[in-house]
Amino acid sequence: MAADVSTAGHASPAWLDTAGRRCLAEARKFTAARASEHFAGRAEGTVAETALPEFVAGGKCLRPLFAYVGWCCGRTESDAALRAAASLELLHCFALAQDDVMDQSPMRRGRPALQARFAHWHAGQGWRGSARRFGDSAAILAGDLFLVWSEQMLRGSGLDPATLARGWPHYDRMRAELAVGQLADLVGDARALPSWETVLDVLRRKSGNYTVRRPLEFGAALAGCGAATLDRLGEFGGLVGEAFQLRDDLLGVFGDAAVTGKPDGQDLRERKASSVVVLAAQMADRHQRATLADLNALGEIDDDAVARWRALITSTGARDRMEELIRERTEKAIAAIGVAVVPGHALGLLTELATRCTERDL
Amino acid sequence: MAADVSTAGHASPAWLDTAGRRCLAEARKFTAARASEHFAGRAEGTVAETALPEFVAGGKCLRPLFAYVGWCCGRTESDAALRAAASLELLHCFALAQDDVMDQSPMRRGRPALQARFAHWHAGQGWRGSARRFGDSAAILAGDLFLVWSEQMLRGSGLDPATLARGWPHYDRMRAELAVGQLADLVGDARALPSWETVLDVLRRKSGNYTVRRPLEFGAALAGCGAATLDRLGEFGGLVGEAFQLRDDLLGVFGDAAVTGKPDGQDLRERKASSVVVLAAQMADRHQRATLADLNALGEIDDDAVARWRALITSTGARDRMEELIRERTEKAIAAIGVAVVPGHALGLLTELATRCTERDL
Repeated sequence: MAADVSTAGHASPAWLDTAGRRCLAEARKFTAARASEHFAGRAEGTVAETALPEFVAGGKCLRPLFAYVGWCCGRTESDAALRAAASLELLHCFALAQDDVMDQSPMRRGRPALQARFAHWHAGQGWRGSARRFGDSAAILAGDLFLVWSEQMLRGSGLDPATLARGWPHYDRMRAELAVGQLADLVGDARALPSWETVLDVLRRKSGNYTVRRPLEFGAALAGCGAATLDRLGEFGGLVGEAFQLRDDLLGVFGDAAVTGKPDGQDLRERKASSVVVLAAQMADRHQRATLADLNALGEIDDDAVARWRALITSTGARDRMEELIRERTEKAIAAIGVAVVPGHALGLLTELATRCTERDL
Repeated sequence: MAADVSTAGHASPAWLDTAGRRCLAEARKFTAARASEHFAGRAEGTVAETALPEFVAGGKCLRPLFAYVGWCCGRTESDAALRAAASLELLHCFALAQDDVMDQSPMRRGRPALQARFAHWHAGQGWRGSARRFGDSAAILAGDLFLVWSEQMLRGSGLDPATLARGWPHYDRMRAELAVGQLADLVGDARALPSWETVLDVLRRKSGNYTVRRPLEFGAALAGCGAATLDRLGEFGGLVGEAFQLRDDLLGVFGDAAVTGKPDGQDLRERKASSVVVLAAQMADRHQRATLADLNALGEIDDDAVARWRALITSTGARDRMEELIRERTEKAIAAIGVAVVPGHALGLLTELATRCTERDL
């Protein structure tokens, strides 16, 4: 299975596609085995036994790829390291399952979100109590299982204890930062309109670190990379992570439902104080600010309101400014690494990953 | 610190009190260090930094005690093993924090539940959005942190990897069973009235296994006890765990708020289909059944309704029958172990723990 990364040469996209598919297959296989162990033949497992592996199967394995490329900065390819990297996809499933409950997001990956699937099951059984509350609770528990299974998959990946020991501090920090970052996000959303600095800080800590920087450091640490390399990879990862989240926030406002798998303008509908929303408020002139306030005061944000809000954000110049911020960060990130820092093949993979993260389609 | 358990002789209660206090101190210390690491000086950490260690400090350390006594079935006392056992208290905090959200329980350990503390904070800040939703989400995240920290505390307990390796399968099963059991509990509550067999099955899997059997097996496995000993301890633990939960269900209906730290008759107010409620429905005659249906149909269960419901349950004979079931299980459990199975001092400790679990004050 494991062709050495050095033979991939300049074929980084193909190598990444293959590695991503293999990570996803491993994460799905592990989840299916656990789900079968705990749910097969049990009434409460009727939906969970199939819904959990399906949920995993919809992933893009971005975090595992950063971790595995991190590993390739210090070692040759390894099936065990690939499984260790793939465990981060289950950590991501944990985050998505619970975030969707907290944000009451109806869709995920083009399908009903997990809590909606569980709520639908409840409603169909004619059970007593609120189907929504049941769905929320069941999805929280599914998230808990993903959190447990991620660590279990990592520990059982086949890496020896000494190798794993180098990764645990990074893994533990990543897990805790994820929960703490989500709390910071909730607080940010609760505030009338957070400052741009606060938004950038949360974005860096919650999404940037978690999506790019920590997985990359984790993989490189597992591979035994030294402190100097970890520092440079950390700088690269921090910048790419920020650019990734800025792009994600643009998609949350301007993204196409067919591409994002979520309703058009979802962040507007949920009134999320995302980076582009806060930036637009800051760049708006007096007239634009009044229109923004009118939109915010609407009882429901319908398709028409989304269209008007989008046009207004664009007219403030915030959309162009976001593109500039993304470009600046990506360029600075790529400049932070070089063949003096990581092997040439890993450099190609990192550059390709940075591009994929930050130039996703609107 | 670590006096050998054999010197405790017949002073099991004092030994257990000391060990429980030490477990609680370790769990609290670990939580305070993590909370400070992630929350100190951060706006979103204002409540969490103090609320999380305080939440831990209110525990009774029942699960750590079973784990540590399990360890003492195979080895002499050890500070590292005590810390490993104490990590189960953080797992319990995870379960309590999230269960209280799912059940919307307002109180825990005589104080407002975690989600209520976070909601109160939100309301006091004059933030936008629902304080209740914010509190729920924050408490879910606090639970996630406890889940992560439990495993981190266990891994860093000081036990060597080979010793830990014997415990992981038990630990992993316990964590997953906890989430799966809670899902089974939600499904049970959603059904009109589950059968007695279903209630017993959920009770065994969710609470019995998790509170007594798995912690005991986990500790004994860490200590290297053989399969025969683990089997007998498993039988003992399964029975004591069931008796514990039957007692807990009695307390949920008849318990005194001053002792339980929860409102009087909380399970009735939440219309939980707990063992005693289901048993009463089964033992009720036609007239009693009609009165039960009337109580169930009330919009709100007030103090008067709680008093009438309690009297009705007692009059069906269900309360006495529950006491009988608890006694039978406790006696059978103690008969399952003996000096042929575990050292004499551990036998004394197990017997004392079984009594504590099953004879708690109403």
